[in-house]
Amino acid sequence: MTDPAQFQLDAHGRLRHLLTTEGMPADILTEILDTAASFLPASKEPPRKVPLLRGSTVANLFFEPSTRTRTTFEVAAKRLSADVIDMQLEHSSKNKGEDDVDTLYTLQAMGVDLFVIRHPENGAAAHFARHVAPDVAVLNAGDGSNAHPTQALLDALTIRRHRPDFHNLSVAIVGDVRHSRVAQSNIHALKTLGVPDIRVVAPEGLMLEDPSKLGVTPVFTLAEGIRDVDVVMGLRIQRERMHHERVPSVEEYHRQFGLTRHTLGGLKPEAIIMHPGPINRGVEIDAETAYGPQSVILEQVRNGIAIRMAVMAIIAGNVKKAAGDQTQA
Amino acid sequence: MTDPAQFQLDAHGRLRHLLTTEGMPADILTEILDTAASFLPASKEPPRKVPLLRGSTVANLFFEPSTRTRTTFEVAAKRLSADVIDMQLEHSSKNKGEDDVDTLYTLQAMGVDLFVIRHPENGAAAHFARHVAPDVAVLNAGDGSNAHPTQALLDALTIRRHRPDFHNLSVAIVGDVRHSRVAQSNIHALKTLGVPDIRVVAPEGLMLEDPSKLGVTPVFTLAEGIRDVDVVMGLRIQRERMHHERVPSVEEYHRQFGLTRHTLGGLKPEAIIMHPGPINRGVEIDAETAYGPQSVILEQVRNGIAIRMAVMAIIAGNVKKAAGDQTQA
Amino acid sequence: MTDPAQFQLDAHGRLRHLLTTEGMPADILTEILDTAASFLPASKEPPRKVPLLRGSTVANLFFEPSTRTRTTFEVAAKRLSADVIDMQLEHSSKNKGEDDVDTLYTLQAMGVDLFVIRHPENGAAAHFARHVAPDVAVLNAGDGSNAHPTQALLDALTIRRHRPDFHNLSVAIVGDVRHSRVAQSNIHALKTLGVPDIRVVAPEGLMLEDPSKLGVTPVFTLAEGIRDVDVVMGLRIQRERMHHERVPSVEEYHRQFGLTRHTLGGLKPEAIIMHPGPINRGVEIDAETAYGPQSVILEQVRNGIAIRMAVMAIIAGNVKKAAGDQTQA
Repeated sequence: MTDPAQFQLDAHGRLRHLLTTEGMPADILTEILDTAASFLPASKEPPRKVPLLRGSTVANLFFEPSTRTRTTFEVAAKRLSADVIDMQLEHSSKNKGEDDVDTLYTLQAMGVDLFVIRHPENGAAAHFARHVAPDVAVLNAGDGSNAHPTQALLDALTIRRHRPDFHNLSVAIVGDVRHSRVAQSNIHALKTLGVPDIRVVAPEGLMLEDPSKLGVTPVFTLAEGIRDVDVVMGLRIQRERMHHERVPSVEEYHRQFGLTRHTLGGLKPEAIIMHPGPINRGVEIDAETAYGPQSVILEQVRNGIAIRMAVMAIIAGNVKKAAGDQTQA
Repeated sequence: MTDPAQFQLDAHGRLRHLLTTEGMPADILTEILDTAASFLPASKEPPRKVPLLRGSTVANLFFEPSTRTRTTFEVAAKRLSADVIDMQLEHSSKNKGEDDVDTLYTLQAMGVDLFVIRHPENGAAAHFARHVAPDVAVLNAGDGSNAHPTQALLDALTIRRHRPDFHNLSVAIVGDVRHSRVAQSNIHALKTLGVPDIRVVAPEGLMLEDPSKLGVTPVFTLAEGIRDVDVVMGLRIQRERMHHERVPSVEEYHRQFGLTRHTLGGLKPEAIIMHPGPINRGVEIDAETAYGPQSVILEQVRNGIAIRMAVMAIIAGNVKKAAGDQTQA
Repeated sequence: MTDPAQFQLDAHGRLRHLLTTEGMPADILTEILDTAASFLPASKEPPRKVPLLRGSTVANLFFEPSTRTRTTFEVAAKRLSADVIDMQLEHSSKNKGEDDVDTLYTLQAMGVDLFVIRHPENGAAAHFARHVAPDVAVLNAGDGSNAHPTQALLDALTIRRHRPDFHNLSVAIVGDVRHSRVAQSNIHALKTLGVPDIRVVAPEGLMLEDPSKLGVTPVFTLAEGIRDVDVVMGLRIQRERMHHERVPSVEEYHRQFGLTRHTLGGLKPEAIIMHPGPINRGVEIDAETAYGPQSVILEQVRNGIAIRMAVMAIIAGNVKKAAGDQTQA
């Protein structure tokens, strides 16, 4: 049984696929953040187009609709001068994902170099990665409630640009942490980068089943959760999850856990407020807070392009290096 | 309260956004027409690709489906060497367009330079323009029944290539002028360019409520409407508008106002026949007329690419100039 | 009445459109195969991007959904450096395809150089070709049950790379040959290339009505059909065609005609197994066979990109030559 955490590295420990932040070594996390930072345009400058992926073909393979995430990968790939193929497909669960693998093989035969995959099932990205050729790579753009590594990486980059010392940081993740791939991937990345205090803040029905397993602290009220933290990260609420025992109504959730001037009264003035977007105004956050002075939500979007460029560029480089290794061997 | 007519110009009176032809100065209209003419390929030559927008990202943000209009902007942007992001979104009216603005902010953070917006609500383009950053521009590709300025500009270019003297021209606009953004934008542009005689030709139920306010003449029969005119412009009929008191049936409309050899018997032989497309054959026009010797419908399409290229190129240039002004100040 | 077979050649006998393999001269088939072979990357090398269509616009005009075929043409066009416009349209049969022709004229006026057309009706591609301008070309990507010439060409290329001598070959086409445009186009191409023994293998309800007219041999059992053949080509089963008198159930079809280790027991070990994709696992083929040592299915996909590049490049070149002829005349 392959372990996705190891499986995404090649024999030399270089990034080969991006499947999860779980188990990803700190030096690779840092390599990605540093590379992304180099892609960020200087203030007031337009983003530059770089030729690193010229001649390569990136396929956006989305088995779950997400116009927004798809667009971030498309923009990043085009900024690297790649050709982009967009495929929105329906996932049929009837034959254990075999049709999906047939699609993968077909696109690979067409000359796709890099697959960006979003899929409703946990582990789908690793499943695809196991089936691609040695010179083809897979990037996980979100699989089930399992992982969303580029989101965690762009969040880490955003935090680092405001609070460079991860070893001296308190972070509160607020919302449906139980079902959130964003929370999962953030916790793994931030733990590895050395963040000592990560709190998950949620009502009982949305709390992680075993917070201690991930090394995070469960907190059941927002006031306590945000006390003295440097970062508050709100999660997007899936309305369909709210009709559940021990889960408050949307209105009640907003009153108790929504990020607003009122509920964040006790937040340090220099703390930053994050959200993976798109926001549900009036549910997990209100507009005043989302666009207020402490919010870095739009920086997250900007950093997201740089992170996706960085991951694609690093992996494309490593695939080339691996091909060179083999030629010499 | 900002006035869209002024708001689309910058402090130096240069075109900053394209929201409406209403109140647009004649010299700017002429600048756009001249620039577009320079983009038109010589007869029998293929269209040239120019690098004016290389490195820029154009986002087609369509909150109303329109494969055809979307394609014209995509072709124009690609011919200027821009990268194009296509987003077909559903407009939710439930929260006063706030979600739409969140989408705008998000795409802007990704590095979009120019938004092409189609939207079902009047004033949507101006609303978006008020929210973009100083180096980002908005082009209105049709908002509600308000405005469709690139259509009016391409119509003006088409007319000018056949009848260069706007001050000596009679134009008949035939059809549902009451609900038509195409009619609105054409009337504003042609008035400003000096056309002395503009007639709106429609049955009572589709007539403008106050034609004199726009300085046009209402005419209730086609025979009278087209007498001695140089240009007949048919409008696309929305079938869903025809089930209405005082509005004839589709068949009756075609008999009375459809552009056909029969109804246009009294038209001057040198007059041109226009239509914004796509045509409803057998409703507002028949095929014989649409593809007949007086029709310039396909020239309109060709000119439409040149107009969209011109508007994008002019605005991109003006944004750069404005940035230069600020650096010097 | 124009004959599509002749109509796709220009006055000098050069390829002008690609509508059908029926009646296409052997030297043109061979020219396409040779050109495609030159576009195939050497083993282990990534595909090259060539500038042959730089500045050209290719429109994918799909009146029938097919993500996969659309993608192959998009990849091929981008690898030739063309701009690609994607249009997925609904075909309305109510006015004899007139709306479709209006769309064609409109896109042509925008500057489209090459149309790739998929359409549910037989003869649609030829119909479109009759309406385009002298410098615009049409490629048939499948029309009704009539023709799918690029599929036949990529199949011929795949066969040639394994069995270079067409004059000494036995080919079995297995499945719903009665309704298959893939079968039609393959039979025409392979006959012209000199294949002496083509068998169509199907149950009675899916058999060609008049196999002798096409010069092929009907066989009603798989065991007999594959005896001593060099190539077995499975066709995709349309499940909706299976509810029909004299047509077996899907299960029964799989048992009798599905390509499996069991049913192919009598196949020569050096024979190749083909399928146009996407496969229905467990219906016309099983996964073990589709990905087994005799399968060349993924080579077909790879060759399909090269074939589409070749056809586009050849036709673009011929259109230029024709324009040169006219200038001199």
